[in-house]
Amino acid sequence: MNKGSARIEINEVGPRDGLQIEKAMVATAAKVAFVDALSACGFARIEVTSFTSPKAIPALADAQDVMRGIQRKPGVIYTALVPNVRGLERALECGVDEMNLVMSSSETHNRANLRMTREQSLAELSAVLRAAGQAGAPCNVSLSTAFGCPFDGDVPADEVLRLAHALVAAGATGITLCDTTGMAFPTQVAALCERAARELPGTALTVHLHNTRGMALANAVAAWQTGITRFDAAAGGLGGCPYAPGASGNVNTEEIVHMFACMGVDTGVDLPALMEIVRGLPSLVERELANPLLAAGPRLATHAPPAWLAERFPA
Amino acid sequence: MNKGSARIEINEVGPRDGLQIEKAMVATAAKVAFVDALSACGFARIEVTSFTSPKAIPALADAQDVMRGIQRKPGVIYTALVPNVRGLERALECGVDEMNLVMSSSETHNRANLRMTREQSLAELSAVLRAAGQAGAPCNVSLSTAFGCPFDGDVPADEVLRLAHALVAAGATGITLCDTTGMAFPTQVAALCERAARELPGTALTVHLHNTRGMALANAVAAWQTGITRFDAAAGGLGGCPYAPGASGNVNTEEIVHMFACMGVDTGVDLPALMEIVRGLPSLVERELANPLLAAGPRLATHAPPAWLAERFPA
Repeated sequence: MNKGSARIEINEVGPRDGLQIEKAMVATAAKVAFVDALSACGFARIEVTSFTSPKAIPALADAQDVMRGIQRKPGVIYTALVPNVRGLERALECGVDEMNLVMSSSETHNRANLRMTREQSLAELSAVLRAAGQAGAPCNVSLSTAFGCPFDGDVPADEVLRLAHALVAAGATGITLCDTTGMAFPTQVAALCERAARELPGTALTVHLHNTRGMALANAVAAWQTGITRFDAAAGGLGGCPYAPGASGNVNTEEIVHMFACMGVDTGVDLPALMEIVRGLPSLVERELANPLLAAGPRLATHAPPAWLAERFPA
Repeated sequence: MNKGSARIEINEVGPRDGLQIEKAMVATAAKVAFVDALSACGFARIEVTSFTSPKAIPALADAQDVMRGIQRKPGVIYTALVPNVRGLERALECGVDEMNLVMSSSETHNRANLRMTREQSLAELSAVLRAAGQAGAPCNVSLSTAFGCPFDGDVPADEVLRLAHALVAAGATGITLCDTTGMAFPTQVAALCERAARELPGTALTVHLHNTRGMALANAVAAWQTGITRFDAAAGGLGGCPYAPGASGNVNTEEIVHMFACMGVDTGVDLPALMEIVRGLPSLVERELANPLLAAGPRLATHAPPAWLAERFPA
């Protein structure tokens, strides 16, 4: 089996991508405590919040307070979603380390999600990238629906690459290929990652997966085999579509960390500490979260054999 | 990405491995209808039932009636679990095409599950293999806990191969490497499959996966990349451990078929027909079955864009 890097980085997106769609209003202090607990786990990056209009995403209206409230751990890069120049200014005021911009690879999803055409989004994000460049702030762009669109169906790789090239030319330091609704499959992931790495050699590439159709970890391995070393993931599989509970969350951070740990790949993440956080998530978001890994335990969490065995098979 | 075969075979084990642990007593006629519906889907093999003692597995006490009741579709191989020579005789009487024998790779699991030492199991299975050979019936042996044991932890590949060699020498025509409790991970799967293929060149190899820790499809891809072409799977993810509902079932047939179809690999299975069967499973087994793929639909099951889009973006 072709192996990828012995060391990968996890970008924990639960506090932003997860909490933004939760119905429960999570208190600012609880968000800060969530991020602080994640900081202690060894993540490379944590997406803390979103500097969108409080009207658009009321759940994250306390972005400034959260950013200012967290205890920064040296070595962790704290990122935030930034939709426009006003959001960038607010994020810079709070000392966000790296910006995450978003647009869709497909036209209909961009219009539905951002209420702009892709060309309008490109213009808006280019303005943000220019301003961020002047401020010396690195900017990643997350390209949604890079592996398929729930409205338009298949998205040509040419389109994804065209947008990625335009965004890198405008100043993006990284590109995230996002499988927004879990349409990616392993050979497709490998092909797009290989092509993006070849065409954008100086750009940090991240893969963002959802487990909607069970393929998230298979896709992660496929990406890793091509040399991808950066993965988005959300603790407990938070996030996704609120209309299909349990069906479309982000890939579970604990599952991706557990799998790569089994494979001897270092993520830097302390799995038992992370699983403790995940255990507390239902009370944070006020709903049940099915969690097979938590239920079963890590693969080598063995059980005592049945008591009758010793009698039946005396030593 | 290294690719495996363009054609794989699915062995549907739901009627046996799934139903044997269900609490609901499924009527014989309903089992027959389940198998007949599966026959129409295009499976290479269907594990229909188990010729174990009715006392040991009361849920499958009607093995003969089910085998005699089903409508055989030409080209489908109908298999059944057979624990001993008496079971083999009963299976042969009903015209089972291929026998499936079972023992564990790890000592404690074999003792707990089969109430025998592995050496006792080897002797018992060798007697079955001898009798089956005389009757001209092909016999596969499923080696449980080949990727890890819930009691003993890691299982050395040397042990798995030692047992596989002994069973092939005794007459087994195929070996299934079973991840009984979802402990397998992709690099391990690839390594064991490669080694088994190298050391047992004339033996049909099958991989049997569970999704306990989310890795089933990743493991399936890893096995496929090494050249494995035969996979066990259970419709709706039936089976697994009754004490951890939703946590330890067999890999879902619909998910493995869907993934390989996305990748252009032919399984021969009609996915929409299979999904119709899966939709009916909760009423068959009288419990809810969380089914993300059924909830989300296949990857290209697109949705109409929001109605306001046409107004906001006139053509």
